[in-house]
Amino acid sequence: MNKHSYNREDMICALATPMAESALAVIRCSGPGIIEKCASLFKPGKSLAEAAGNTIVYGKILCPETGRVLDEVLASVFRAPRSYTGQDSVEFSCHGSLPGLQAILALFQEQGIRQASPGEFTFRAFLNGKMDLTRAEAVQEIVSAKSSASQSLAMNRLSGAIEKEINRIKDDLLGLIAAVSISLDYPEDEVDDKVVIDSEKLERAGDHIRRLLATYGTGQMYRDGVRLVLTGQTNAGKSSLFNLILREERSIVSDVHGTTRDYLESWISLGGIPVRLFDTAGLRDADNPVEKEGIRRAGEIVDQAHIILYLVDGVRGMTVEDEEFLDKHKEDPFFIPLWNKADLSQKEAPKGFLPLSAVTAEGFETLEKAVSKRLLEGKLPPEGAVIDSLRQKELLEEAADCLVRFREGMEQGMPMDVLSEDLRNALNCLGEITGEVGTEDILDTMFSRFCVGK
Amino acid sequence: MNKHSYNREDMICALATPMAESALAVIRCSGPGIIEKCASLFKPGKSLAEAAGNTIVYGKILCPETGRVLDEVLASVFRAPRSYTGQDSVEFSCHGSLPGLQAILALFQEQGIRQASPGEFTFRAFLNGKMDLTRAEAVQEIVSAKSSASQSLAMNRLSGAIEKEINRIKDDLLGLIAAVSISLDYPEDEVDDKVVIDSEKLERAGDHIRRLLATYGTGQMYRDGVRLVLTGQTNAGKSSLFNLILREERSIVSDVHGTTRDYLESWISLGGIPVRLFDTAGLRDADNPVEKEGIRRAGEIVDQAHIILYLVDGVRGMTVEDEEFLDKHKEDPFFIPLWNKADLSQKEAPKGFLPLSAVTAEGFETLEKAVSKRLLEGKLPPEGAVIDSLRQKELLEEAADCLVRFREGMEQGMPMDVLSEDLRNALNCLGEITGEVGTEDILDTMFSRFCVGK
Repeated sequence: MNKHSYNREDMICALATPMAESALAVIRCSGPGIIEKCASLFKPGKSLAEAAGNTIVYGKILCPETGRVLDEVLASVFRAPRSYTGQDSVEFSCHGSLPGLQAILALFQEQGIRQASPGEFTFRAFLNGKMDLTRAEAVQEIVSAKSSASQSLAMNRLSGAIEKEINRIKDDLLGLIAAVSISLDYPEDEVDDKVVIDSEKLERAGDHIRRLLATYGTGQMYRDGVRLVLTGQTNAGKSSLFNLILREERSIVSDVHGTTRDYLESWISLGGIPVRLFDTAGLRDADNPVEKEGIRRAGEIVDQAHIILYLVDGVRGMTVEDEEFLDKHKEDPFFIPLWNKADLSQKEAPKGFLPLSAVTAEGFETLEKAVSKRLLEGKLPPEGAVIDSLRQKELLEEAADCLVRFREGMEQGMPMDVLSEDLRNALNCLGEITGEVGTEDILDTMFSRFCVGK
Repeated sequence: MNKHSYNREDMICALATPMAESALAVIRCSGPGIIEKCASLFKPGKSLAEAAGNTIVYGKILCPETGRVLDEVLASVFRAPRSYTGQDSVEFSCHGSLPGLQAILALFQEQGIRQASPGEFTFRAFLNGKMDLTRAEAVQEIVSAKSSASQSLAMNRLSGAIEKEINRIKDDLLGLIAAVSISLDYPEDEVDDKVVIDSEKLERAGDHIRRLLATYGTGQMYRDGVRLVLTGQTNAGKSSLFNLILREERSIVSDVHGTTRDYLESWISLGGIPVRLFDTAGLRDADNPVEKEGIRRAGEIVDQAHIILYLVDGVRGMTVEDEEFLDKHKEDPFFIPLWNKADLSQKEAPKGFLPLSAVTAEGFETLEKAVSKRLLEGKLPPEGAVIDSLRQKELLEEAADCLVRFREGMEQGMPMDVLSEDLRNALNCLGEITGEVGTEDILDTMFSRFCVGK
């Protein structure tokens, strides 16, 4: 976001849908005077200028100088404050034609409607009090969600789940601060008698902060996905399983890209949880330096895995290398050994192994359930307030620290005017989370991650 | 388009914007009862159900069974007949989130709102008399237009330019048919006295049909683009010029793709005309079979060119091969010889050559003007009714033939009841163009070319 983004009086516009041939495309405009400006580029202009808020006008976008018609459109009119940004706004539903869209955007630019920066519409919504920062953050998370559960969590945040939770904590802190303030009004020698710190409130505030903090791991998992790694000796059937998983899980459109590096990666959705699936180079003692490097990297991928699926070739049976790997990882709760080629194998699957055939898909459902179960183990179900923003996490940690310092200070008999600073700092951290307190830097970083048109 | 598309009583839905992460996405729904159906999946449902036409309601899409919120959206409500399709319609402006959109489309499907076929919304618009066939054809042409002028022409058609022209011709034909019909009411022996064929009308109808037919070449050029081919000996600088043209012409986003074949192709827009630019393999006697094949294909590309830019290396000077090529093509009005590397060359450009440096861009503007001029030579400016549909062209030709037959028959003294058939056939052809007369086959072919959501 560049400097002028902070000027919320500009008229701005952006294509809010992808720049690609399609049935429809939406150009979003906002800012004081935008309805009149758009009306001057519209026929019938009067209908647009006089349209009530939340109504739709059919007409043509035309160049006022040449009279050239650029497109036939529907114009949705929003009047402040009943709009996304809180300002007067117009959204044009145009034909999804590349030259047409380019011509319209060029016309708008010529006519003084500036191209919006990423996130600028949401930024204005925040500035105009239409949403707090936790909701604003949720907007972009919804757009980039990789699974339906991630999208649900972000929807939850958008509806204010975090804000509500934060406000509850702030209420408790405000109560504590009020009590401390009263004590400060009294002469110092009377203090000890007068200060009554509601320890239940203090406890509860701390608990709530910690509870919210504890959701960060889950939130992150839903945002960034779980790293599910397929590994095993060469020819154990890793790639067959990789393809089988991709074929079965169609809930997310994913492109498998053979990277220049030597593993394959793809997004899938397992029980609503976004999963980054990795297929790695088969493990073996290799002479070939390229293959060696591949195996070294496979090791790295395995080290960063959240869940490891280890395939053993059930026909070949367990090798020494398999035994070594299993020994090393058997204690890992997120390690799942698979007995592959079970349809051809003469041998029973060893204890703890899931029998599977990556070719016939036999055993695949059991595997899927096992993975989903481990993913959700110890994780709360995706409802309620779940944070996934590092910014929010760090501020919550700071608030928690402040409360700990406050309690310790109290126990050590520190003077109340010093202690009250801790409470105020905790409150400030919470205020920063919702955006009551904030710096341009934070806003800048946050909104520049957005896509244009949001 | 499959069979059930013809059932216009179904509720249908489609994502009308591209399936990609973006700020907004639009899901279009239409059909009898669609507002009530959507209201049952919406909160506040009552606001949606009771919304006036052309108004916008803010709310949430939710699963009626689980209560799960799928997205916060704006719902635009259109009431029949004031909608694109002429039926009750709802358009949801959603977050551009892939899992979110998939979830909503799945919910709609479950709830009996069928996925629309390509072009089905426009098809319904046609069936409900919202637009004639020439306008319906224009809809898809607008979306896939490759330059602003092509888009303008299609806009013209969408506003009914062809329909108006056709109706004018039909009026004349109807006048003629009326006159003939009167004559048929009289006993045969009185006919010759009574039939007064308004030859001016007949002339005019024929003229208008021919004039419209004559626009086909231009229309096609604007739809399919002009083939502009760069050729010349190896090292004449063709690829530098190719890159220069692409860098200078940014009016269309184009991806240059190195095809597996041995030439490069890219879309550009020159003076508003869409141009397909080809860079070909250098011409020379090659031993290498791959290169030989490349040169053979370059020859094919040159043969299909609308404009040939032939580059001669101004430093090396004219070679025997250059002379041969020039001799073969010099009469071609769309052949432009270029004296490249003019900045380094010691020699004057030969007569008829444009001096150019593909490296410094010197002479590029002159070249551009020369190309634009030749493109537009003999072509009418892009306004008025211009046809680009083969269907329309063939029907116009048939109508023209009918009129010729009618005139000849008249001159040969054929009986009026036979002649009147020719007039009726001509009228039928025109009716087919606008879609008054039509067969399922035509509709099927035409609308299946559309993108989904249109």
